[in-house]
Amino acid sequence: MISIKESKFIKSLQLKKFRKLENRFIVEGAKNVLELMSSDFVVDTLYVTEAFRSSHFEIWDGREDLVVRLVTEKELSKVGVFTNNNAALAVARIKEDASMDFSKSLLAFDRVKDPGNLGTIIRIADWYGFDTIVCSLDSVDCYNPKVVSATMGSFVRVRVVYAEIAEVVRRATCTYGATLQGEDIHAIDFKDPALILFGNESTGIAPELIEQLDQQVKIPAYGQAESLNVAVSTAVFCDNFRRVLKKS
Amino acid sequence: MISIKESKFIKSLQLKKFRKLENRFIVEGAKNVLELMSSDFVVDTLYVTEAFRSSHFEIWDGREDLVVRLVTEKELSKVGVFTNNNAALAVARIKEDASMDFSKSLLAFDRVKDPGNLGTIIRIADWYGFDTIVCSLDSVDCYNPKVVSATMGSFVRVRVVYAEIAEVVRRATCTYGATLQGEDIHAIDFKDPALILFGNESTGIAPELIEQLDQQVKIPAYGQAESLNVAVSTAVFCDNFRRVLKKS
Repeated sequence: MISIKESKFIKSLQLKKFRKLENRFIVEGAKNVLELMSSDFVVDTLYVTEAFRSSHFEIWDGREDLVVRLVTEKELSKVGVFTNNNAALAVARIKEDASMDFSKSLLAFDRVKDPGNLGTIIRIADWYGFDTIVCSLDSVDCYNPKVVSATMGSFVRVRVVYAEIAEVVRRATCTYGATLQGEDIHAIDFKDPALILFGNESTGIAPELIEQLDQQVKIPAYGQAESLNVAVSTAVFCDNFRRVLKKS
Repeated sequence: MISIKESKFIKSLQLKKFRKLENRFIVEGAKNVLELMSSDFVVDTLYVTEAFRSSHFEIWDGREDLVVRLVTEKELSKVGVFTNNNAALAVARIKEDASMDFSKSLLAFDRVKDPGNLGTIIRIADWYGFDTIVCSLDSVDCYNPKVVSATMGSFVRVRVVYAEIAEVVRRATCTYGATLQGEDIHAIDFKDPALILFGNESTGIAPELIEQLDQQVKIPAYGQAESLNVAVSTAVFCDNFRRVLKKS
């Protein structure tokens, strides 16, 4: 059973204001909870269904700090953002802000607003071996449950740093930006370490940031679509970046 | 005003059964409706808000076949799948099934289930100049309003053909499949025309289809994520495909 008080607490963590206040966030679904449990995040409470418990009890074996609560599927789905959750939900502690290491290549985002996009971007960064991404201060919060859910577990490996992007661009050695009028990405001889900047879903990179970049880069179009989704562009950039570095 | 009868009719088109029966589908939002109006789709009825009408009345100028109805934002949002629609909604006719042209390269999908993924895939196909994609018979319907909405207007240029994938693979000249254990995509010398096959969101390409392929191709991982989203993979494949062909 989840008490009314607990239920209110868990639901409150859907809002950034309460996540900041409580320093806690929620993780939902089997894949994400399993990744969380094998990471260095501190977990307070784990709500599990009988089905999940019977197949995964080893994940809390010997963890005396952890409260494990048996609940029904219906209860889980009621307190989380998932329409259906037949597995687990965890309440975990938000980590301290990570620092940026400019000796490694970084992905940066100017005003990414859609939680699904940021989650997918974190998954892509994890696939392509970027352990830190930088988001402008007005981007969506990476502890938003919809972001966490879209990462498919990659939130445990990729740190998101919120910072003033203009300042980050100034500090980076070599900066590229994804625009619709840059150089063809297939002809770019990417440097490493680099900072690759992506813009807002509707308006792209802010003009004052574009001015500061070393190079604008475009994904060439072969048809008539006006643009690509920001997560899709991120993947195409990461793939071209890794391909070029492999050869050099 | 939208009458109760009209409202019921529009809402019924959210279900595939009624779309088939009525041979109609709905298109929502400014961008998608504008693309629809400049395409060769037959449009029956256009529901527009005053704001949309005053800035876009030229789109139905001289089209006497078309019924244009002035409605409120609230009415639009009530009958469609968009939470907020401040612009327009159209009821249009479903096109006859397109045919496959094996002299051109094709993207094919084995059991793509998520409407957002199929919509994003259609947008990517349009960007990379593929005018036809093939989906297995049990894939999500391309006239599903969530698919149409995610295409950002590209549904008017990319035809989706539903077919038995095993048969399509047999008929294609050269077939590649996206798997986790294929050859590194950065080393593939893609042929044109080719068929590139992608699998289901959870289970990938069915084993009996993998056996039939000329070549399995993987996107190399540089980090620890287990997989990439199918739409993201599609974009990375399209980009590598176009890059290789440009050089040859």
